[in-house]
Amino acid sequence: MSSWEIFVTEFLGTMILLLGGAGVVANAILPKNKGFNGGWLMINFGWGLAVFAGVYVAFSTGAHINPAVTFGIWASGASEFGPGIPVTFLNGVIYISAQLVGAAVGATLAFLAYKKHFDEEAPAAVKLGVFSTGPEIRSYGWNFVTEVIGTFFLVFLVLSFGNYPGDLGPLAVALIVVGIGASLGGPTGYAINPARDLGPRVAHALLPIKGKGSSDWSYSWVPVLGPIVGGVLAGLLAPAVAFG
Amino acid sequence: MSSWEIFVTEFLGTMILLLGGAGVVANAILPKNKGFNGGWLMINFGWGLAVFAGVYVAFSTGAHINPAVTFGIWASGASEFGPGIPVTFLNGVIYISAQLVGAAVGATLAFLAYKKHFDEEAPAAVKLGVFSTGPEIRSYGWNFVTEVIGTFFLVFLVLSFGNYPGDLGPLAVALIVVGIGASLGGPTGYAINPARDLGPRVAHALLPIKGKGSSDWSYSWVPVLGPIVGGVLAGLLAPAVAFG
Amino acid sequence: MSSWEIFVTEFLGTMILLLGGAGVVANAILPKNKGFNGGWLMINFGWGLAVFAGVYVAFSTGAHINPAVTFGIWASGASEFGPGIPVTFLNGVIYISAQLVGAAVGATLAFLAYKKHFDEEAPAAVKLGVFSTGPEIRSYGWNFVTEVIGTFFLVFLVLSFGNYPGDLGPLAVALIVVGIGASLGGPTGYAINPARDLGPRVAHALLPIKGKGSSDWSYSWVPVLGPIVGGVLAGLLAPAVAFG
Amino acid sequence: MSSWEIFVTEFLGTMILLLGGAGVVANAILPKNKGFNGGWLMINFGWGLAVFAGVYVAFSTGAHINPAVTFGIWASGASEFGPGIPVTFLNGVIYISAQLVGAAVGATLAFLAYKKHFDEEAPAAVKLGVFSTGPEIRSYGWNFVTEVIGTFFLVFLVLSFGNYPGDLGPLAVALIVVGIGASLGGPTGYAINPARDLGPRVAHALLPIKGKGSSDWSYSWVPVLGPIVGGVLAGLLAPAVAFG
Repeated sequence: MSSWEIFVTEFLGTMILLLGGAGVVANAILPKNKGFNGGWLMINFGWGLAVFAGVYVAFSTGAHINPAVTFGIWASGASEFGPGIPVTFLNGVIYISAQLVGAAVGATLAFLAYKKHFDEEAPAAVKLGVFSTGPEIRSYGWNFVTEVIGTFFLVFLVLSFGNYPGDLGPLAVALIVVGIGASLGGPTGYAINPARDLGPRVAHALLPIKGKGSSDWSYSWVPVLGPIVGGVLAGLLAPAVAFG
Repeated sequence: MSSWEIFVTEFLGTMILLLGGAGVVANAILPKNKGFNGGWLMINFGWGLAVFAGVYVAFSTGAHINPAVTFGIWASGASEFGPGIPVTFLNGVIYISAQLVGAAVGATLAFLAYKKHFDEEAPAAVKLGVFSTGPEIRSYGWNFVTEVIGTFFLVFLVLSFGNYPGDLGPLAVALIVVGIGASLGGPTGYAINPARDLGPRVAHALLPIKGKGSSDWSYSWVPVLGPIVGGVLAGLLAPAVAFG
Repeated sequence: MSSWEIFVTEFLGTMILLLGGAGVVANAILPKNKGFNGGWLMINFGWGLAVFAGVYVAFSTGAHINPAVTFGIWASGASEFGPGIPVTFLNGVIYISAQLVGAAVGATLAFLAYKKHFDEEAPAAVKLGVFSTGPEIRSYGWNFVTEVIGTFFLVFLVLSFGNYPGDLGPLAVALIVVGIGASLGGPTGYAINPARDLGPRVAHALLPIKGKGSSDWSYSWVPVLGPIVGGVLAGLLAPAVAFG
Repeated sequence: MSSWEIFVTEFLGTMILLLGGAGVVANAILPKNKGFNGGWLMINFGWGLAVFAGVYVAFSTGAHINPAVTFGIWASGASEFGPGIPVTFLNGVIYISAQLVGAAVGATLAFLAYKKHFDEEAPAAVKLGVFSTGPEIRSYGWNFVTEVIGTFFLVFLVLSFGNYPGDLGPLAVALIVVGIGASLGGPTGYAINPARDLGPRVAHALLPIKGKGSSDWSYSWVPVLGPIVGGVLAGLLAPAVAFG
């Protein structure tokens, strides 16, 4: 694949991911929606199935749609990011920049789909919550730990799939993400993906959202650095324990 | 397949789709049901699994069961609607008319299954809600945008499945629809299928439903035209970005 | 397979079905359970996954675990009930009697698992509800219609699986049952299986359940005859419309 | 595989199982979480998908991640615990000790992920509930019966998978566990795995948890002995009824 094709593929996959992911949060927390207060499990399925869709769209690049996966593959010592795509610095930059832009565009599409609900009265933090994650109990250190653990779970599993002699493909990743949301999403809202959080946060800062408040930049490093550390740890451990 | 076989197959698939889809809404919103107030995620699973069933029933025609898919395949420049079924104007008309009639009949079967609950007191808008979609915040323009985006998601994914070297078949479509419901169904109830909305709206107008109100024809063009536009956009984009 | 092996296999499959199925209802409606008031979707998944388990256990007989399926296969004109098991009157009797006994035993196991919760105070109708279905609005005619439609959906799909060139196996049936529960279970609690309802009703009549009331025999014919009629209708229609 | 590789693999699989499993309970019951009061079905999916993840991680040892499975395979008379791993006393000890240590470590990781929520005020029994199971109605005899039945269901199904000519692999086990949780988890919280309960109970006793109370050792034998008995019963029965 050409660099342009890699960029477009990861862009579209991450765009679809955020369209679904930001969408389900909007449905659950913005007023007057049919899914208002639909519950945490609905959000978990919405995000998991957004991953499912994103993986289909981006399968030809290996469907990272998440810089933590890109970092994890790099740390694992693998030679390819995807079929026929060598692990190089340039390719890493292409993957990650495509993911960031795709995430911002996907969240913007979700904003458009929910435009009239954003125009309703709601706390500024709720409107930000559609775009980016935030902790329930603010503690940068422990929030960071939570994101490291959650992303470790994700990337360790994604790297384990390669060893398994069966193929559920996109479904396996989707279900792992449903599970991580239910199991490890309570404290910080499971960014577990730097692009998923940073791209939409930039979109939030730029878009003309009624009653918009702060984009909470002071927290923004946690869901970027935590997932990168978690992904790298998984990339280092997974190949060392793949026996049999 | 003969024209008649195409018609019967798409008819039955869409009938099953609406039997399940209108059914789960009836269960969730009509009084005295065991699933009353069962939540948005229950509705999402009910619709998604109705698609699952409909795709099995109609697999030999490619299981469109949705004019937006038929339009999307046409726009994509594909040569066949389904295995051995060429893309022609006549075949398009057969698909879409079968879908419309099937949807009306399926919704009528759901009405019969829930007859005693339709006989209970409930707002007229609730009874219409079992048949057809309606917006939470009426704004024809933005409601249209929401339907375009949701249907784009669906048809873009359906067209992407063809590129993927694996086969979850009906399950993949079903899960995408569960996800779209959770993620993009909040504002308008995700028609994302002109037949799913228009066929049952006609049935609602014709059936002797106790306490029946308006069929809300003024909104009826949104869930028809929006999905067609979304399907066509996906049909134009998907083949252009299928690399690898 | 010998007659004895057929009997044991269908017995065990239906036993597992009812252990899971009666179990999830007990969890949801008997006092002091961790899943008390867990919602209709939890019941739908519990039943669907009980089918999933039962189909694995009984796969070597074709996993009917439901007389409506046995009747449907007979009505479809097929030559075999399962691999190497011819459609004969005697085999039909073996299948159905095994299903009835298995259902009664499975519900009894669920009773034992929930024994301390049956000992709590609860309305007699709630305790019966763990074993057998009952309508929300009693109307024998319309309740019958609902059971016919729900079972038609189930058996029509089960017979359609045979035509599909893919294999989700037990998962496909399980998901169809999750969907039927969500979509068509509201009025009568979706027996859609005569053995599932009659076997446990007999168990209810025989077991020493604290605060036990009537076994509601006046309703008991509906969830037996309705599913048989629905299964036969599906058996007649499915082969006639399987094109391609 | 070497003994060390078996140990590490079962350790990691069970660690992942408890990270997900203890995590979803923490999310649902500890204050201020995004998934607080998320419902029993969310807990069922969290646990089921934790199994899904654990089975992927440990597939090369046959993914027991549960001493009841190890005992069940031993009782079934099989010659191998996993591919190329003979059933010997020593191997059994390796499997089970790895599972116990892995479960303790996994629960500790979940504790770290939810550290700030453990620091909040909550009843001591709630904090223990993240680590280990407890009955809703204390009755050692009947609680034991419930655990025997639930684990019998699990191990009987796991052993039945081997006969089935299809492969859903980790998904099949995951869904069975979702189903058991919904259907049989009401009275005791479905330990159905001695390591899942005992390992984290030891961790609870050792960790510096704010407001920690008793580790409830008087109940601790039930979720150890019950699952072992259930697993052995399934191991004895399953091969005897696998016809066809």
